Amino acid sequence: MSTSPAPNARPHIVIIGCGFGGLEATRALQRADVDITVIERTNHHLFQPLLYQVATAGLAAPSISAPSRSLFRNQRNVTTLMAEVSGFAPATREVILADGQRIGYDHLLVAAGTTHSYFGHDDWAAHAPGLKTLADAFTVRGKVLFAFEAAERESDPEKRRAMLTFCVIGAGPTGVEMAGTMVEIARHTLKGEFRHFNPAESRVLLIEGGSRVLQAMPESLSKKAQSHLEELGVEVQLNAKVTAIDANGLSFQTGGGADGTPANVQRVDSHCVVWAAGVTGSPLGRILGEALGMSVDRAGRLKVEPDLSLTGHPEISVVGDLAAAMSYHKGKEPKPVPGVSPGAKQMGRTAAANILRRLKGQPTEQFRYADYGNLATIGRNAAVVDLSTPLGPLRFSGRLAWLFWLFAHVYFLIGFRNRLIVLMDWASAYGTYQRSARVVPETSPEHRPANHG
Amino acid sequence: MSTSPAPNARPHIVIIGCGFGGLEATRALQRADVDITVIERTNHHLFQPLLYQVATAGLAAPSISAPSRSLFRNQRNVTTLMAEVSGFAPATREVILADGQRIGYDHLLVAAGTTHSYFGHDDWAAHAPGLKTLADAFTVRGKVLFAFEAAERESDPEKRRAMLTFCVIGAGPTGVEMAGTMVEIARHTLKGEFRHFNPAESRVLLIEGGSRVLQAMPESLSKKAQSHLEELGVEVQLNAKVTAIDANGLSFQTGGGADGTPANVQRVDSHCVVWAAGVTGSPLGRILGEALGMSVDRAGRLKVEPDLSLTGHPEISVVGDLAAAMSYHKGKEPKPVPGVSPGAKQMGRTAAANILRRLKGQPTEQFRYADYGNLATIGRNAAVVDLSTPLGPLRFSGRLAWLFWLFAHVYFLIGFRNRLIVLMDWASAYGTYQRSARVVPETSPEHRPANHG
Repeated sequence: MSTSPAPNARPHIVIIGCGFGGLEATRALQRADVDITVIERTNHHLFQPLLYQVATAGLAAPSISAPSRSLFRNQRNVTTLMAEVSGFAPATREVILADGQRIGYDHLLVAAGTTHSYFGHDDWAAHAPGLKTLADAFTVRGKVLFAFEAAERESDPEKRRAMLTFCVIGAGPTGVEMAGTMVEIARHTLKGEFRHFNPAESRVLLIEGGSRVLQAMPESLSKKAQSHLEELGVEVQLNAKVTAIDANGLSFQTGGGADGTPANVQRVDSHCVVWAAGVTGSPLGRILGEALGMSVDRAGRLKVEPDLSLTGHPEISVVGDLAAAMSYHKGKEPKPVPGVSPGAKQMGRTAAANILRRLKGQPTEQFRYADYGNLATIGRNAAVVDLSTPLGPLRFSGRLAWLFWLFAHVYFLIGFRNRLIVLMDWASAYGTYQRSARVVPETSPEHRPANHG
Repeated sequence: MSTSPAPNARPHIVIIGCGFGGLEATRALQRADVDITVIERTNHHLFQPLLYQVATAGLAAPSISAPSRSLFRNQRNVTTLMAEVSGFAPATREVILADGQRIGYDHLLVAAGTTHSYFGHDDWAAHAPGLKTLADAFTVRGKVLFAFEAAERESDPEKRRAMLTFCVIGAGPTGVEMAGTMVEIARHTLKGEFRHFNPAESRVLLIEGGSRVLQAMPESLSKKAQSHLEELGVEVQLNAKVTAIDANGLSFQTGGGADGTPANVQRVDSHCVVWAAGVTGSPLGRILGEALGMSVDRAGRLKVEPDLSLTGHPEISVVGDLAAAMSYHKGKEPKPVPGVSPGAKQMGRTAAANILRRLKGQPTEQFRYADYGNLATIGRNAAVVDLSTPLGPLRFSGRLAWLFWLFAHVYFLIGFRNRLIVLMDWASAYGTYQRSARVVPETSPEHRPANHG
């Protein structure tokens, strides 16, 4: 197959994944005298920070994604392959695709990201979809909207209450954004559309195992975020360990910890549970580790050298959420790199530069993460922002933070059209509370045995 | 269940389907002193004339659809139910839902539309998806885009040729629009994006059983449409009867008819076949017919009285594509109503007016179809328009016809946002040849056994 370079070819770099890390690495190699093959299992790059908007019917899928291959149209040293990687043959320097095809490399960059982790409870996946892909977002959108549809047909008040109870597990940025938006849908978007109940009766629970929401944020901003969520109408349940999820709801336990409070298990009947709690490195991390005789860490990630290559394998780099990477600053202890998109992008750029240094026989450089801060939105008019500036941290919340969040996200979207449409959709949603993508291609799962056109 | 009216309630009208016919009937009853229940199996009204644009990645799904229930938010006499109808009990005047729930009615209006008909070859459905729903459009979008993706990975020239051969069966408006757009995608949109082949090598075949394309049009416009399709690069095959469709392509027969030409069967290897050939009335037509002791016609439709009610059942009306309806004009022979959206809308309005007349004890009126003409687009800059004006027919084609087609479709879209976005997307597509919805949520079906994040 012609994806392997000809004998006299330029160095061949294979990049797995076209998320933030893979895309940035590929772009950084734009002018390099190399051949690049990008292998991506979907046909698009996805702007994951706004995926919750697709899940909550605020944006159409094409507004936050772009075809990978069209991003590289003018980068003539890139070949894009839509394919599934299933293994590695490091001895012969080959990537193995699911259909058996082998693709040789001189340098391999793995940016395969993460997938949901249900902490060993894989059976929960069927009842509590996570939010990593467009397909996930459509699943969640259907679950949220169809719950209200089912409630309109239900006359038993107790059953209806379960249909109108929405649970989000995990109070990181995605969980907080999902919960805040779900309340807005129930209180505002759907207002006046149902005849047998008031959608504002809906309950939205945000269940978090830790002691505060947005744990990556300073404690003061966590507090602000929580009180704003509660003002909106989200029931925030902290220090709560989910012990069961099934088709009819979930159970969680509070107390019973080292502090001596008695354990208390609560059952919540709910037909719509969203998992925003845990991620783990893509299975490709484990597969690559096994091929190299190294193991992944507890978060399913591969530990990388300071230059983002694997120990003993300078010809393999790992970047993004799949890498357990450290950031090196002169005269300071190395610090772990957080799993956020700027981290993935910066790793992609550093790894690309190090690949070129290695190919030229030059020494590679250590990765240094530039932390510009952290931000999360809570709902209409509210966000929390924690910026790192040369003059020290700058923290703010409320409407100004929300505008900052909004423009930062629009700025980093790919494509002028997407920026414009997202701004338009948000402006319209702000003015009318309407959400522009409230359609689900499928018929309701309960009524799937289709029989009329 | 509370969807049945209370004993002292106003007359209860049940409307099945929220397509053009059902939506228009419901709106026509806006000020009527009745209770209306609209039952729709999806959560949206769909602007079907632009569905081919979703299938060919030109528009996002939310741009051509609107949540049914939000369309009726301010129409307080409407209750919207997302549900599947599975049967009828005309003796007790009840509709039976798939989950067994029964909904009583005083008047029933059935606007369930059509579904694909594979002329008795139901096994073809798996290989040649049709285009009636958003789910269909996503299936076709994935098939078209993934065919090019597979071709980039294929080194065998013969196999690649099959991947780059696209067949559209049926040269009605949808088939003509699909074929014209597929050529544009291959020649322009994807230009420069592949490294192992030139997408302009693709073949697009339009296979039609009849003797001309767009048979609802005057013959002169059919000829114009065909020659424009051929200029674009579509291979138009007329008088061709498809005899087999499987995973690897199709066979069709030409000749062998009454004219004495010898039969000739051709095989086309193709991985992307789209069915735009036949529709038949929704199965609900047959189910309702059986409940009433009447049968459907060859096209699966129910024959209606001049006032759009069923013979012997003035309390049941059928409108839209499911109705075999005639149009009555003074002093002329009644003419069959064509299966187009203006026909469905007009039937919806007439049926609604007749329901109110019947409830008041007044005589009902005959349906009279106002034929404003017919239009179809062929691709960039080209369309054919056949208008009926008081001064006689007005026929034109080319760029002016295309602009007319474009603004007519934007005008009839529901919602200001959709009109604006569609215009923007079309303007951008016109200027750049890019298509804004080239993302497919799924990973490639060939590589579905997902194993990296």
